[in-house]
Amino acid sequence: MFVSFEGIDGSGKTTLAGRLYEKLKAEGADCILTREPGGCPAGEEIRKLILEPGCDLPADAEVFLFLASQCVNTVNRILPALRDGKTVISDRFYHSILAYQCYGKGYDRAFVERLCRTALRSLAPDVTFLLDITVDEAAKRFAEPDRFTEDTAFLERVRRGFLELAEEEPERIVIIDAGLPLEVKLDIVTDKLYALGTGEKK
Amino acid sequence: MFVSFEGIDGSGKTTLAGRLYEKLKAEGADCILTREPGGCPAGEEIRKLILEPGCDLPADAEVFLFLASQCVNTVNRILPALRDGKTVISDRFYHSILAYQCYGKGYDRAFVERLCRTALRSLAPDVTFLLDITVDEAAKRFAEPDRFTEDTAFLERVRRGFLELAEEEPERIVIIDAGLPLEVKLDIVTDKLYALGTGEKK
Repeated sequence: MFVSFEGIDGSGKTTLAGRLYEKLKAEGADCILTREPGGCPAGEEIRKLILEPGCDLPADAEVFLFLASQCVNTVNRILPALRDGKTVISDRFYHSILAYQCYGKGYDRAFVERLCRTALRSLAPDVTFLLDITVDEAAKRFAEPDRFTEDTAFLERVRRGFLELAEEEPERIVIIDAGLPLEVKLDIVTDKLYALGTGEKK
Repeated sequence: MFVSFEGIDGSGKTTLAGRLYEKLKAEGADCILTREPGGCPAGEEIRKLILEPGCDLPADAEVFLFLASQCVNTVNRILPALRDGKTVISDRFYHSILAYQCYGKGYDRAFVERLCRTALRSLAPDVTFLLDITVDEAAKRFAEPDRFTEDTAFLERVRRGFLELAEEEPERIVIIDAGLPLEVKLDIVTDKLYALGTGEKK
């Protein structure tokens, strides 16, 4: 089972992904928690580079870096874990590339999707939880904006992108109101996972 | 005028590119020297990552990193310099991606060429000097092999790739015997550049 969490920065997906991981571990499940960009050592270096590149990064250079990170982490960590029967929880996956780079920055979506398919060996999450939040609300949640969060018009396009992706794939993407209490959001996630057959009990 | 130097590691292209740069500067030419991967700050970080990734890098992750580096350096440094009328000398450019990744590692060439065209805004060198050397000779020239130079069968494919690329583009790619004395190689390069109209005198 491969589960991803998506949403704009400040939507609380990192917290919720972490809580799900703890809960599954406490129940004895064999699972790993990873994030994009990041995950393995090379991925984490790429993450640093994307956040603080030291110079302008054209939109397509950014796409290549995100793809490199997801490719190396997918091949080195996610696919081997899935082959071993583990549950993989990822804080972001390719929907973030589509939302941020295509909807947010206007990079050609068909081209990026083709790159994602080859780079990620056609891997897609079994279920994706999209934490939806308004850009204004999200901005209240992070203390120091980084270069991805300082442009509210950009974040509006990214948010709309996520929602359009969810409309296209209602069977894969579950929209969750980010404003709900954490325990309620965790219940929504675990109910869905149990329904998908990951566990026997609720 | 955009000039690139290509060849397997140990072929002496870095030295020759540096000597050309010094010679042109001494003659009063307005030129910059750059390298791939590398060049601008983000490019140099990507270079470090490629050389010491900390974990296995799949061939396509490597392609994405090379593309990211060349994209950011092309947009940030090379194109602005060319627009300002400068001569740009690059230690490697996209022919290295084709030789190392496609010929060396078997990555699909048509796909990589399409990525290169978009990432590099269709920029191609006006002239490329390919320093040809046998893998055995090259191995004598570098003290400590890195992860690109320890596999001689791989380097043989890369060398053959460079030679095939030169056969396809005889008007762009000049093959130079890397075993010639440095001053002779420098004369071949400057003769070609003068012939292409960069300077008035020899």
